[in-house]
Amino acid sequence: MLFELDLPRDLRKLTYKELEKLATEIRKYIITVCFQNGGHLAPSLGVIELTMALLRNFDFLRDRIVWDVGHQSYPYKILTDRRDKFVTLRQYNGISGFIAPWESPYDHFAVGHSSTSISAGLGINVARHNTDTWTVVVIGDGSLTAGIAYEGLCNAPQYGKNFLIILNDNGMSIDRNVGALSSYLQKIKVSLKLKNLKGAARVFDKLFKFEETLEEYLFTGGSFFTSLGFEYIGPVDGHDIKLLDEVLKSIRTIKRPVVLHVLTQKGKGWFEAEEDPEKFHGISGPKVKKSENFSSVFGRKLTELAKENNNIYAITAAMPLGTGLKEFQAKFADRFFDVGICEQHAVTFAAGLAKEGKRPVVAIYSTFLQRGYDQIIHDVALQNLPVVFAIDRAGLVGEDGPTHHGVFDIGYLRIVPNMVLTSAPTREHLEALLEWAVNYKEGPVAIRYPRAKASSLEELGIEESVSVEKGVWEYYSSSNDENLENYVPKLDRLEKVRTSKADVVVILEGFFFSRLFKRFIENGWDVVNPVFLKPMDEELLETIVRSGKKLVVVEWHSQTGGLFSAVAEWAAKRGVGLKALSIGIPEEFVPHGKIEDLLKHCNLDTDSIEERIRKWCVE
Amino acid sequence: MLFELDLPRDLRKLTYKELEKLATEIRKYIITVCFQNGGHLAPSLGVIELTMALLRNFDFLRDRIVWDVGHQSYPYKILTDRRDKFVTLRQYNGISGFIAPWESPYDHFAVGHSSTSISAGLGINVARHNTDTWTVVVIGDGSLTAGIAYEGLCNAPQYGKNFLIILNDNGMSIDRNVGALSSYLQKIKVSLKLKNLKGAARVFDKLFKFEETLEEYLFTGGSFFTSLGFEYIGPVDGHDIKLLDEVLKSIRTIKRPVVLHVLTQKGKGWFEAEEDPEKFHGISGPKVKKSENFSSVFGRKLTELAKENNNIYAITAAMPLGTGLKEFQAKFADRFFDVGICEQHAVTFAAGLAKEGKRPVVAIYSTFLQRGYDQIIHDVALQNLPVVFAIDRAGLVGEDGPTHHGVFDIGYLRIVPNMVLTSAPTREHLEALLEWAVNYKEGPVAIRYPRAKASSLEELGIEESVSVEKGVWEYYSSSNDENLENYVPKLDRLEKVRTSKADVVVILEGFFFSRLFKRFIENGWDVVNPVFLKPMDEELLETIVRSGKKLVVVEWHSQTGGLFSAVAEWAAKRGVGLKALSIGIPEEFVPHGKIEDLLKHCNLDTDSIEERIRKWCVE
Repeated sequence: MLFELDLPRDLRKLTYKELEKLATEIRKYIITVCFQNGGHLAPSLGVIELTMALLRNFDFLRDRIVWDVGHQSYPYKILTDRRDKFVTLRQYNGISGFIAPWESPYDHFAVGHSSTSISAGLGINVARHNTDTWTVVVIGDGSLTAGIAYEGLCNAPQYGKNFLIILNDNGMSIDRNVGALSSYLQKIKVSLKLKNLKGAARVFDKLFKFEETLEEYLFTGGSFFTSLGFEYIGPVDGHDIKLLDEVLKSIRTIKRPVVLHVLTQKGKGWFEAEEDPEKFHGISGPKVKKSENFSSVFGRKLTELAKENNNIYAITAAMPLGTGLKEFQAKFADRFFDVGICEQHAVTFAAGLAKEGKRPVVAIYSTFLQRGYDQIIHDVALQNLPVVFAIDRAGLVGEDGPTHHGVFDIGYLRIVPNMVLTSAPTREHLEALLEWAVNYKEGPVAIRYPRAKASSLEELGIEESVSVEKGVWEYYSSSNDENLENYVPKLDRLEKVRTSKADVVVILEGFFFSRLFKRFIENGWDVVNPVFLKPMDEELLETIVRSGKKLVVVEWHSQTGGLFSAVAEWAAKRGVGLKALSIGIPEEFVPHGKIEDLLKHCNLDTDSIEERIRKWCVE
Repeated sequence: MLFELDLPRDLRKLTYKELEKLATEIRKYIITVCFQNGGHLAPSLGVIELTMALLRNFDFLRDRIVWDVGHQSYPYKILTDRRDKFVTLRQYNGISGFIAPWESPYDHFAVGHSSTSISAGLGINVARHNTDTWTVVVIGDGSLTAGIAYEGLCNAPQYGKNFLIILNDNGMSIDRNVGALSSYLQKIKVSLKLKNLKGAARVFDKLFKFEETLEEYLFTGGSFFTSLGFEYIGPVDGHDIKLLDEVLKSIRTIKRPVVLHVLTQKGKGWFEAEEDPEKFHGISGPKVKKSENFSSVFGRKLTELAKENNNIYAITAAMPLGTGLKEFQAKFADRFFDVGICEQHAVTFAAGLAKEGKRPVVAIYSTFLQRGYDQIIHDVALQNLPVVFAIDRAGLVGEDGPTHHGVFDIGYLRIVPNMVLTSAPTREHLEALLEWAVNYKEGPVAIRYPRAKASSLEELGIEESVSVEKGVWEYYSSSNDENLENYVPKLDRLEKVRTSKADVVVILEGFFFSRLFKRFIENGWDVVNPVFLKPMDEELLETIVRSGKKLVVVEWHSQTGGLFSAVAEWAAKRGVGLKALSIGIPEEFVPHGKIEDLLKHCNLDTDSIEERIRKWCVE
């Protein structure tokens, strides 16, 4: 049926029976595509009926909808104007895994990070006050844990008009939901059960709002929302399309901003996803990489360190699995904190721990750490507190696309006084840097590492082991340097520069180090691993510049404000005439797609980089 | 009495009568010092009794206290160990206007920005779980509007132990309080009045908690807090020291995290401050500058522009007065939004407005805009939405000190794709840039301007008027350039470089432009006004560099990652051998004090800058 319909128009013509059948077809379609391309399976399976009901009751070419995060928008995409193209989900030049206004007139506000929907929706709503259109926001209970969602909630009652917030409550954020609001929502559900009501559906037919009639319900019911000034309706069964249809129809008559509380099941309709929605929140497509990635190296090593050091605390913002902290969580429950989607709180909470002598390690993806920026400056760096930031997903992340690429962190962190910023390009480097960081007492340390398989030194053919020294980089000479008899670790790298016969020195940052190391050494180019992005190894830099070798910086970060920029700033301040080539992610919002596709898009595939270097060298 | 006491010890020995007398003395002392040095008068006057009660019931050498924002901590400073030094409040090398752990063992966590206290306090609390000490957080109702406070609230019930949050409810943030939570707290108070209770004090004696006994109260009372899992007590009269004393004593027996709701009067005890607490929230000391400052130029010009353009909306995060938007608010109430201390929401809300064709202008101080960083990237820049950011207080701000200096914004904004970043150093520039910005359709524009008197061009002896062109800088030749007969605006600046006889070209950014312009021109140095920090005037830069003139960059921003850095990055990418001198705010957290003191501290007073330039020129 799905592929015969004129969408979204025909949705209004179908019977409830037909709609249920359609829902099943959509489920299958989504599952098939996700297993092919990867994607956020569970959230999308949970909102199929809701999406149908919304499309029957609103016209989203006139009305507006903001899907929070947007990872639950697959049914919406299929049911509006992307049914056929949906097979290209998350592929380069294909359909985005999130809401993307450049993709369709049905997508009204770009999202990817969580919890922005109420604020964005309210702005859209206020701008359209002189029309009779509606603004609908769909936000999950997990997303409600974030501060910006609360800020939106506090502002919406005053300014919203024809403004509907649908609380899509599946009792999950990405992992199991945490925090007080979550317990509160849980209480609402429990109180329902106590009342011996078989689901909300039946009651709803009789009573428009629970809280006006069920006395007991008053004490736990929507009071959080009503205390803020909303009309609160619910909870209603989010898989009962008939009920949803009727509720939405009634809601259009309410003038005050409304919160409609809908209970859905993440991963609905697919056994595996239903049983383990966290694991299937996002899946990575068919080719599952067996080798250890950086997240798991991080989690394993931190757990190891925590065995010996009781002061180590781990903090994640709703990403215990994604950041690799599941084992730590299991072993050290009392030193593990999943604070919900609360990056701001995570950072300041860590600052408090550090102030009292603990060693908090805050594991947040590069792109999400932007949410805690003020707290990094104001609460951590200003007091020079030894908080460790484990910055996962630094660089391009692939299929999640422009909202998720972590390409600004060197820029926004290196300007923060007291911050030590490092980059881990191999498994051993991450292990060594983490160990160094939790033992560094003088202030905050950040470690950035990519979303990638963590190569070992052995795989790269590197025999030397990692030895971390603040502000010291590693220099790999492509010439044979066995004649360095008096090995003095710190001076050694300077000696290597002087004795190397190479004309070209390439600083390979992050992801590019493991990717290009072997090939560049074989090319006869010397390679630098800039372990400390701040403070930089100025001694080494100066030696390289003075050696007359050509210097290239290749970084897994935006070319603006990143490592090249830091090197250029240093050189200009020192009055060192710098001739260097900058290679990195161009200053733009890079689209989604497989890493290899994105590298080509950015002219950063290996051949292109090599060609750019060769060309520049002869200029 | 105050100056005879052994503090804080003797507080426990005084009778309530004596404490009341002491409170009066402290009020007078604070008022005297604030009128001498400037400072946050009203918030501190409101919490004198509360502070005394806290110091009688806790030992803050063992227990911990986090004062939110910290601007209400003057009584605490006086009553702990800074009674005598308090006369140096906000002066260079004197007592900080905020909480400062480097100043006293009684200060446990540095603050300055609002709403961090619950998160920081919780971190401190968790780190001390194995002790029997208490952690007390004092947070105002205004601070509760911010997302991070909510994130803290959601996490505290689960993890807090001996954890007391005092809600210091004065019905104000900095300006009148806004938002849903504020209405909610208001409702609590109204319901009290309806119940014909003469203040909370009397009731409290009889009933420990209202909500357990006053049926009606249940529907509005502390349910916001109890729904999150706190014990809620209150509201109680925050000026009744006896009552506070008893309540705090009782609270120590409660094991679950407690919210104690205290009603205080901002500016209590001083008629003028009481009547107009917003105006006296912070006062600037005796020498009130009569000339127009940048904030008021901004507010006036935006109001003017809004008369002609219905699409202009103004948004402030609890700073209608500070940002100069009072007139706008009065004239265009329906296009004015004070969203509370919600910088994240402010930015995303503006993005929503812009998405629907409006022209939102978001006025936030440089230091506070750090709170909306992710939203700037993810919600505004990614969709390239024409939101205007009016960045007030860019640069050093003086007496408010390290938490408030706005010295990172060039760094964190110039790395954001699509962002246009400008700097307004005079009244006319701010006016012209604002007009240009609200008419610029292609994407976001930020305008940074200092906390300072706005000089006019006339005062600087500049006859040319301002003409804004994207990416074009202004060049002021110290040589007579009347022989430029064919005046071609865009080329003119390049011609000026070529015909100028000066050896030195100084780029003067922000505050430094109006401060140094005349003197440097008289020195025979050419001056550049770098109107667009991004995109920069590369054509002009190249012409200057090629001219062989010595280039100096003086910026009202950190030397790391700022304008000099951008110039160096550009030069290195272009392969231009750059010899340039960087002068700016050193990479450190600059202390508080008068601007002139801070300039000396940073080696940035006029003589020092001049000497640095001269010295560098002969190197």
